Amino acid sequence: MNLKVVFLGTAGSVPTPKRSLPAILVKRKGEQLLFDCGEGVQKQMIIAGASFHKKMKVFITHMHGDHVLGLPGLIQTMALLDRDKKLEVYGPHGIRKFIECVRETVQFGLTFPIEIYEIGGVGTVCNEHEYTVQAVWANHLTPSLAYALVEKPRPGRFHTEKAKALGVPEGPLWGQLQRGKAVRLSDGRIVKPEDVLGPSRRGRKIVYTGDTRPFDGLAEFAANADLLIHDATLDDELAERAEEDGHSTPSQAAKIAKKAKAKRLVLTHISARYKNTSKLLKQAKKIFKNTFVAEDFLEIEIPLSDK
Amino acid sequence: MNLKVVFLGTAGSVPTPKRSLPAILVKRKGEQLLFDCGEGVQKQMIIAGASFHKKMKVFITHMHGDHVLGLPGLIQTMALLDRDKKLEVYGPHGIRKFIECVRETVQFGLTFPIEIYEIGGVGTVCNEHEYTVQAVWANHLTPSLAYALVEKPRPGRFHTEKAKALGVPEGPLWGQLQRGKAVRLSDGRIVKPEDVLGPSRRGRKIVYTGDTRPFDGLAEFAANADLLIHDATLDDELAERAEEDGHSTPSQAAKIAKKAKAKRLVLTHISARYKNTSKLLKQAKKIFKNTFVAEDFLEIEIPLSDK
Repeated sequence: MNLKVVFLGTAGSVPTPKRSLPAILVKRKGEQLLFDCGEGVQKQMIIAGASFHKKMKVFITHMHGDHVLGLPGLIQTMALLDRDKKLEVYGPHGIRKFIECVRETVQFGLTFPIEIYEIGGVGTVCNEHEYTVQAVWANHLTPSLAYALVEKPRPGRFHTEKAKALGVPEGPLWGQLQRGKAVRLSDGRIVKPEDVLGPSRRGRKIVYTGDTRPFDGLAEFAANADLLIHDATLDDELAERAEEDGHSTPSQAAKIAKKAKAKRLVLTHISARYKNTSKLLKQAKKIFKNTFVAEDFLEIEIPLSDK
Repeated sequence: MNLKVVFLGTAGSVPTPKRSLPAILVKRKGEQLLFDCGEGVQKQMIIAGASFHKKMKVFITHMHGDHVLGLPGLIQTMALLDRDKKLEVYGPHGIRKFIECVRETVQFGLTFPIEIYEIGGVGTVCNEHEYTVQAVWANHLTPSLAYALVEKPRPGRFHTEKAKALGVPEGPLWGQLQRGKAVRLSDGRIVKPEDVLGPSRRGRKIVYTGDTRPFDGLAEFAANADLLIHDATLDDELAERAEEDGHSTPSQAAKIAKKAKAKRLVLTHISARYKNTSKLLKQAKKIFKNTFVAEDFLEIEIPLSDK
């Protein structure tokens, strides 16, 4: 079951020839979850071969233009391509008025419904059968959310030898047990999933900080993440400026990753001043080895956990 | 005196990996005039080495998203880079509400004034010392303007031999005569510009149709243009669809260019279906030889006329 992260835009607040504005696409079982939607996202999606027709949710961290101005063009292109599935948009207060006022002033001719969820509190903002999306308030210049995509635990490994020993015939009953349902055999005995399944296996977790200074609770929010995608707009030497602008530095991001026991850290929202990002990488790696610097169209596959 | 056209976006209503959404930048004597402002224009400007600080005017043809959704990001980046010069924005009714509602819902922190001109009638919409911008209603699905940048005539060639024969000493007085001002010599005689200048020389003219079907008056509006930039979204075989969608075909554009006695025709707003545009070029060239198909970052220099 694939879970892939595609970095569509990795720039700071101003794009560069090589970096488009913030947008991170997560592909999961035929669904697309887009975290932030900076200007140019539709073109980046086309280049990356993403779909305008699939089940899709957009999660906006905050209402600064570089994180949200790609949304109207994305909606327009979906309409031009006759999308029919609804589009869900989650974000802080203001996202509804933004979408509505652009729809009133720019002509779209929508072919699909848009469901807008303004996130007031924190916690679970989206609860699907196999995953949730969690939100927590970050620490930026304006109300800004960090998001976590958290898969629910999967049933444990199916032990065929146990099933056979219990006399469960190979076929549909095996499938029911694998999906966590008890079954009744022809002789009347009940076999429960726990009789044939190993311990349930944990789901995967991806955390995206959006724009933020380091804040209390972030490491806990990101605990055991398979992938932590963290703001690292400016390098350690510009920590004071980062603090003023509501951003983080590589070593701040790395400390969070370490404390959270994350598996992998990707630095993003890279300021246009860094033509070469080796300095950022070096600063983070001193603290957290498994660090990468995002670049546009970088793809990361998150493997299934076996535990 | 340079006059250069840089095609920043040449796509139809949906971008492609190689074509950004409609935007045409005209550079003239340290000023930038941008015709249409599709999503992604700020990134295209960065790639093309255009400035966010120079004197600048934006002319929007119509309120469809693909022509206007780059404006908020352009404004935000100008503000982030501390622009101080005003930005003038011209467009049809609706442009003011669009800019204002985005400013209300997305946080910009403007560092410069924006002057918005909603164009109600046609004719001269902008009158500068050395040029005017003219508008006429085109024929699209929604109110849409075609624009012409028309330079005012320049003073004629300065004949040094005539100036010398009349006893005008080389120096500041020559400059005054060249700029069209009469001068008084030390012996009291008056020398007029026409005594030393040849006939005034015509200015240059660039016409951009925006999205349009062919319409009466377009050839006249584009008369003698040095450059006609014309909608050619779909090829001749799809003329019926072009008519439905409010667009033109290459041969329709070429007929206008021929009738207008334009010097050069550039086809733009190219549908994503054309990976190869040779078909479009061929259809137009049958009627108007000096035709080109726009591509992103194509630059065309318009030479000064000597007549």
